[in-house]
Amino acid sequence: MVEGIIMLVSGGISWIYQDGDFLSFLYSSLVIFGIALVGYPFLRNTPKNLGKKEGYIVVTLVWILFSFFGSFPFYLSGAIPSFTDAFFETASGFTTTGASVLNDIEALSHGLLFWRSITQWLGGMGIIVMAVAILPLLGIGGMQLFTAEVPGPTPDKIHPRVKETAKRLWGIYIMLTAIETVLLMIGGMSFFDAINHSFTTMATGGYSTKQASVAYFESPFIEYVISVFMFLAGMNFTLAFFAIKLKFEKLIHNEEFKWYTSIVLITTLVLTALIWFGQEISLEKAFRDSLFQVISIVTTTGYATYDYLQWSPIVIVIIFMLMFIGGSAGSTGGGPKVMRILLLLKNSHYEFKRMIHPKAVIPIRIDKRAVSPKIVAHVQAFIVVYFLIFVFGTFVMSAMNLNLETAMGAVIACLGNIGPGLGEVGPASNFAEIPDFGKWFLSFAMIVGRLELFTVLVLFTPFFWKK
Amino acid sequence: MVEGIIMLVSGGISWIYQDGDFLSFLYSSLVIFGIALVGYPFLRNTPKNLGKKEGYIVVTLVWILFSFFGSFPFYLSGAIPSFTDAFFETASGFTTTGASVLNDIEALSHGLLFWRSITQWLGGMGIIVMAVAILPLLGIGGMQLFTAEVPGPTPDKIHPRVKETAKRLWGIYIMLTAIETVLLMIGGMSFFDAINHSFTTMATGGYSTKQASVAYFESPFIEYVISVFMFLAGMNFTLAFFAIKLKFEKLIHNEEFKWYTSIVLITTLVLTALIWFGQEISLEKAFRDSLFQVISIVTTTGYATYDYLQWSPIVIVIIFMLMFIGGSAGSTGGGPKVMRILLLLKNSHYEFKRMIHPKAVIPIRIDKRAVSPKIVAHVQAFIVVYFLIFVFGTFVMSAMNLNLETAMGAVIACLGNIGPGLGEVGPASNFAEIPDFGKWFLSFAMIVGRLELFTVLVLFTPFFWKK
Repeated sequence: MVEGIIMLVSGGISWIYQDGDFLSFLYSSLVIFGIALVGYPFLRNTPKNLGKKEGYIVVTLVWILFSFFGSFPFYLSGAIPSFTDAFFETASGFTTTGASVLNDIEALSHGLLFWRSITQWLGGMGIIVMAVAILPLLGIGGMQLFTAEVPGPTPDKIHPRVKETAKRLWGIYIMLTAIETVLLMIGGMSFFDAINHSFTTMATGGYSTKQASVAYFESPFIEYVISVFMFLAGMNFTLAFFAIKLKFEKLIHNEEFKWYTSIVLITTLVLTALIWFGQEISLEKAFRDSLFQVISIVTTTGYATYDYLQWSPIVIVIIFMLMFIGGSAGSTGGGPKVMRILLLLKNSHYEFKRMIHPKAVIPIRIDKRAVSPKIVAHVQAFIVVYFLIFVFGTFVMSAMNLNLETAMGAVIACLGNIGPGLGEVGPASNFAEIPDFGKWFLSFAMIVGRLELFTVLVLFTPFFWKK
Repeated sequence: MVEGIIMLVSGGISWIYQDGDFLSFLYSSLVIFGIALVGYPFLRNTPKNLGKKEGYIVVTLVWILFSFFGSFPFYLSGAIPSFTDAFFETASGFTTTGASVLNDIEALSHGLLFWRSITQWLGGMGIIVMAVAILPLLGIGGMQLFTAEVPGPTPDKIHPRVKETAKRLWGIYIMLTAIETVLLMIGGMSFFDAINHSFTTMATGGYSTKQASVAYFESPFIEYVISVFMFLAGMNFTLAFFAIKLKFEKLIHNEEFKWYTSIVLITTLVLTALIWFGQEISLEKAFRDSLFQVISIVTTTGYATYDYLQWSPIVIVIIFMLMFIGGSAGSTGGGPKVMRILLLLKNSHYEFKRMIHPKAVIPIRIDKRAVSPKIVAHVQAFIVVYFLIFVFGTFVMSAMNLNLETAMGAVIACLGNIGPGLGEVGPASNFAEIPDFGKWFLSFAMIVGRLELFTVLVLFTPFFWKK
């Protein structure tokens, strides 16, 4: 129903601009309302307290069904004539990935552009509530860890606090979207472009209303504004909440935030140096291009102001490495998350200490609190499964005759919810040329990646279906 | 002293063939004997029972010093005019890697060819004794696991049994080398070529006396013989010991062996199908090429009878994936080893079970025996560190302007002790064009990989040097 209503709003945009796609939206939303009406009596009698297993199914189904119905306007309007392509584009929206199959984005009607952007914004809202409310309960890949130190839910009494937390975080999300819209308009964007870009920035989605992405606007001011807001979208929203309350000591003492900031700053400086030397560009331009691309990739947004594949091999490798980090826990960013990488590095470091002192108990500390070995094991298993999917995906994509670089790039771009990849799916290109089976596979990878792998994959194990 | 004596033997070959390199060997061995004589009084007074920390230093130094002194004959003879190149070639020998900088192997004298092959054979012997005697004691990356189910050492009373075990395994190693030599001569090789190839097969080293590697001989018989012996060299030598004693039930019930065999067979069949369809070659040729290349890569030998980079993208990706597996534990093969990958896959599988039953204790079993969570954690940490080195190495190599594929290929080829990689360091090429710094870095990677990472890397941590 929510999706149908938002669809009608997008239809309203089409109506205002008289772009001819109003009816596609109307029909699509009618289909949804129809199914909702038929389905409601069946669902009304479900118990209010869902179990863990039902949780996995519901979360997975939400993303699949939203993507399925959400592709109707693209398909019915004829803007995306292939249903595979329409599904890919919509799944890429709701998972805040930003990978596109469109060769001429500007040809899309205003209604469809708005719909495309708002799928990401809705996806972002879904991720926020999922991160604070659902995943910690489901106990996935050490997500319990993500709620430490924040006024978040505790497994025993979830309902009152989770609602409160989700509302607060959504408040921040909406507020930041509004502020960015105003700033982008000050920077010279039309209201329409500004709100679309704000939607997709805050969701770390990366859909643009322009084929050339943010590069189109040729405005350093806009690029800096978007850089800042991508950075905000990639940080833990609970921390943003404290920042707004001026409790900056919470930020300063948060290890993940320190690492997140350091990764962005250090990589930006290194890239600035690498692309500035020996090139005929100003230092400011080199810094701006580096900053934008680094934040865009780390936060898994995927906007582009420069085709990073044009840079030297080492810069491409750095960008590729960033793709395996992702945003902070509790942000809208995808990927394995800074928190998990941090824990992994700490554990690898301490493994050497354990070698020397095999009988000592050496706890890993995050924010000065010991992390239980069980959570460390979960995080390690998460990373291992992440790599296994990456390897398996690369194998599948290469079976479609894509070269190694393109195959790896396509998989990590989708699994990590980034958008642009490497090789033939780089920022100056798109996913249009990928064979249909590949598009379905990558759509699946987006949903798997967005839902922290295990939520979806567990449905394919025998353990799940055993009574 | 051992190295000096083997050097003199190689010098003897040069004397017999009158190839002019006798003096290079003589001088090199005199340097070693000289240093040994000067150093002996200092070392004589060291305590007989070395501690763990001394263990790491000694093992690391053995490989570094053998590589350092071993490069003298190449350097002094002028065959390899750059000392960097000579060191790389020798480290590649003693670590049984097989990566080469030589553009014209056949131009080498018989003495140097023999020296080059025997560095690998000695390296292989070193690895066998290290695997059964030293690493389990040092407690590295779950190596304790590797000696389970075998009549190996137990930490409390090591001396008598380890000597016995090492002697037995060396016996098998020498015996198999002899048998292979005879078979290769039956296949038409000269005694010299046969013994050299047998040395480097059993060590899973991969140095050939020919620039074109095993492809030079154009003999299916030779290719099958080498395939079989590479396979034997990549299996746990303790199992080979049981096989010789006709205790085949030990093989059949060994999970790692089953996986090792399955990986080889399944990948070979898949590759056979992939390269046979649509090509004008016989099924036997497709099977033979697949079998040889698969075994050569899985066992980390690195011989070539076909340039796998000429195959389609999916075949290259499969080969690339094989590079991250490696031989069996307790073999001369490099890489992370089948055992660790097996444990990792089992653990990932059970992670889903743990999700559904978070309070249940779910032990992982190998050969029907439960593996302690501590060992699983060690193995996971090992794999994570392995990937971190791979990523860091790729970063370093790309800083020397190598493209992503070449950078990744060079690092895994050396870290995994394989030999040929991808891109510009594929089987039809070599490492000559890598910049000097890259060669030193890769030499280091070979030694790090050969010594199961932690042995070497722990020396660079503060924990090691703290009293």
